[in-house]
Amino acid sequence: MKPSEYDLDEPIVAIATALVPSALGIVRTSGKGAIELVARAFSRPEALRSASGGTLVHGWVLAPAKDVAGMKQEKSEREKIDEVVLAVYRAPKSFTGEDAVEITGHGGPATVLAVYRALVAAGFRPAERGEFSLRAFANGKADLTRTEAIREIIDAKTDEARGHAADRLAGSLSAEIGEIKAMITRVLAAIGVEIEYPEDEETTHGAFDSSLVEEASARLRVLESAWAVEKMYQDGARVVLAGKTNAGKSSLFNALLKEDRAIVSDVHGTTRDWLESTADFAGIPVRVFDTAGLRETTDLVEAEGVDRSRSLAGHADLVLYLVDATAGLSADDSEFLERAYGDKTAIILVWNKADKTGALPTPAIFSAQDGAIAYSAIPCSAKTGAGIEALVAEAARLLMGDKGERDLRNVRSGAPGSERQKIAIETANAFLVHAIAAATQGFPKDAIEQDLEEALSALGEITGEVTSSDILDAIFSGFCVGK
Amino acid sequence: MKPSEYDLDEPIVAIATALVPSALGIVRTSGKGAIELVARAFSRPEALRSASGGTLVHGWVLAPAKDVAGMKQEKSEREKIDEVVLAVYRAPKSFTGEDAVEITGHGGPATVLAVYRALVAAGFRPAERGEFSLRAFANGKADLTRTEAIREIIDAKTDEARGHAADRLAGSLSAEIGEIKAMITRVLAAIGVEIEYPEDEETTHGAFDSSLVEEASARLRVLESAWAVEKMYQDGARVVLAGKTNAGKSSLFNALLKEDRAIVSDVHGTTRDWLESTADFAGIPVRVFDTAGLRETTDLVEAEGVDRSRSLAGHADLVLYLVDATAGLSADDSEFLERAYGDKTAIILVWNKADKTGALPTPAIFSAQDGAIAYSAIPCSAKTGAGIEALVAEAARLLMGDKGERDLRNVRSGAPGSERQKIAIETANAFLVHAIAAATQGFPKDAIEQDLEEALSALGEITGEVTSSDILDAIFSGFCVGK
Repeated sequence: MKPSEYDLDEPIVAIATALVPSALGIVRTSGKGAIELVARAFSRPEALRSASGGTLVHGWVLAPAKDVAGMKQEKSEREKIDEVVLAVYRAPKSFTGEDAVEITGHGGPATVLAVYRALVAAGFRPAERGEFSLRAFANGKADLTRTEAIREIIDAKTDEARGHAADRLAGSLSAEIGEIKAMITRVLAAIGVEIEYPEDEETTHGAFDSSLVEEASARLRVLESAWAVEKMYQDGARVVLAGKTNAGKSSLFNALLKEDRAIVSDVHGTTRDWLESTADFAGIPVRVFDTAGLRETTDLVEAEGVDRSRSLAGHADLVLYLVDATAGLSADDSEFLERAYGDKTAIILVWNKADKTGALPTPAIFSAQDGAIAYSAIPCSAKTGAGIEALVAEAARLLMGDKGERDLRNVRSGAPGSERQKIAIETANAFLVHAIAAATQGFPKDAIEQDLEEALSALGEITGEVTSSDILDAIFSGFCVGK
Repeated sequence: MKPSEYDLDEPIVAIATALVPSALGIVRTSGKGAIELVARAFSRPEALRSASGGTLVHGWVLAPAKDVAGMKQEKSEREKIDEVVLAVYRAPKSFTGEDAVEITGHGGPATVLAVYRALVAAGFRPAERGEFSLRAFANGKADLTRTEAIREIIDAKTDEARGHAADRLAGSLSAEIGEIKAMITRVLAAIGVEIEYPEDEETTHGAFDSSLVEEASARLRVLESAWAVEKMYQDGARVVLAGKTNAGKSSLFNALLKEDRAIVSDVHGTTRDWLESTADFAGIPVRVFDTAGLRETTDLVEAEGVDRSRSLAGHADLVLYLVDATAGLSADDSEFLERAYGDKTAIILVWNKADKTGALPTPAIFSAQDGAIAYSAIPCSAKTGAGIEALVAEAARLLMGDKGERDLRNVRSGAPGSERQKIAIETANAFLVHAIAAATQGFPKDAIEQDLEEALSALGEITGEVTSSDILDAIFSGFCVGK
């Protein structure tokens, strides 16, 4: 079912925490009659029914009454499923704006599932993806940028990405869009007056405040370009470690993970050909690939391994090419670098084991035939950890590319959090640019008026004032159940 | 640090849900000053400080104030980490019996970690394993059987196991132990009177009520034997699918998982030699091994595969040996069965593809030299699913063995949940048996009195009235953090 087809009146239930053994687990409910339905599966129904919104009620979730010898079980005879605390919310003071009960119990998968099933048996419908958030939006509890930010904050892979999403959740993008819309609205109001009273010379003069439209356009452009940074923080990058056997790839791989910035640092051998793990490069979630298969191979297989390594490198956003500083650059190394240069692969030359030599090679060493190659060369020691921080910083700078020219920490406020938002911003700006050109060329005021209204409408899509079922479907079908 | 060495006064914090992207996540705190410490990291400290116990407070978790240009950031300038709801508990009305705040926010790993770190920065100490539960016990909120049941309910792999743990959490074992102790105490009191007033003939007569001690002993024996069933529900069993290529092992493997009773049914190819997954056999969590490596092999390798299969089967609690009913029992099959018989391996002969033949072979077919083999033979069709239910039921019956003679559903009340509890029950019963023998043989009353007191002491260890730091360490070091 598409989100736009959800029945938003029904009481719904979902498991809101992962089904993994843990201390606590949450099953959440919302909708008309939610409190009464939970009461049917609860050991202290009267305590729940009389509870004020914003309070906690302690008790047991009970299995449905069974027929025993033709009689329904009494409450005291029903099976106890789990000892829980209910958080009681009464409309409109809840996340969804509806009556809602969140049930916190023990976090065993069997327990959470059993509580969930008891609530379905009590009359709740299993929630669809993103249905809680959709209801929050539909009931005016949060606009679309804040609703989308919920998903972004859940999916954030680094603390930096989390911070950006939290800013949007707090309304930073809404606020910025709101200010831009207010500018456009002021210009529109002035044009409206002029169209209605064309004879009033004083009003006519200065009616189209192009500087205000230009400022609005400039601010939209800032938002537009901020998306590339956001996207990098959200989606992350692929970094491949390459280099000859014994250059120290595995040590660097471990050193990068040991930095302990990674939120998920499970090393899982996805295939026998390489190792993959996740690290945090100055806020960018990075999938690091170690072509571990190259180690301990015969020369013949090594050739194959180099091919494989090249293929991985070809799909990377950045290659960290390791050279053993004590051995220096070999013909193989030069060949790899030249070829990568031809393929326009972003590369950092990692001058490993630099603790043993100290000296950095001159850039000339890396020059190919045309003499134009000048890779960043970072001396470091994967073993002692020296230089790793500089390496990570340089890698992050290269990954951000042009996007990283500004101080990234300062673009947080009002950056878009999704492709959808970015496209609407582009659309709005295109109409503003068109309006400015039309004004310059002396087009009729109502043509300009139409451009500005189209721009407003595009911005309205961002926050959700202007919505279509397509937009809602695209947004909420990407959510997890329970949100 | 050992649980017995924890400082139980300090305010502690722990992540209580799994660090997996999910809708909601919980960070929990407890201890002296917990509410004030959370207030330091909260956007609405006054609302939290003035909140009554058992209420919810909405707001944002804030990062610690940074120094900006030599000045501490104002609250409004501090970074917003996540929008959360605080569940406020005031001592003694909380799980731990202390002041406590549970912080429910968005379930992104980066978000949950950032909230956790903000609370550590605010002054909380990271909780040790099981420390919340230990405090609940230390503060008299729950006896040891109920505290241990928390871990059991989290670890429960099937709904049946969950139900048994929930019964103990509700106090079923405590109640049964309490009644048995009351019986022993009554006998002890009578003996005490007799020792003090030995001249009172009327009191002397019937002072040692052996029938009461015998009843107590009988009830302890019931508990003792219930442990074997509990252990099977908790630890589960290993079931190996064996049989010739094309007998239908993979189809049966999938059919067993398709039953969808499994809570965790991830099929992960642990090695190239077999597949493993988890299924629910009438409440018993079962690890099912499919010797998938035997498929599509040449004859030479097949021989190796059969060896591997036999090795796996040798470590199984039960082997499901598949025979293609349309092909009948081959010499290979007979050889495997005879050898397994020699090894005393529990086997069910699965007469697969029975939908195509209908007829069951007679037991004589399975007889080895001594004619004594008579395996259960279950006709089924892994393809249509016919017979699978009967197969699962028979497997569960065999796995329970003698333990399953009684109606298993009826042993729930008061079954022990851990080896520790079972050993204490055995010890107590040994003293009762000794007391009965001593009374029969006319031993002095104070010897009998001592036996009964030892029995009481052993039972006191179960609920925790009698504890040592060794007992506490053994129990709580097995908990997860956050419980």
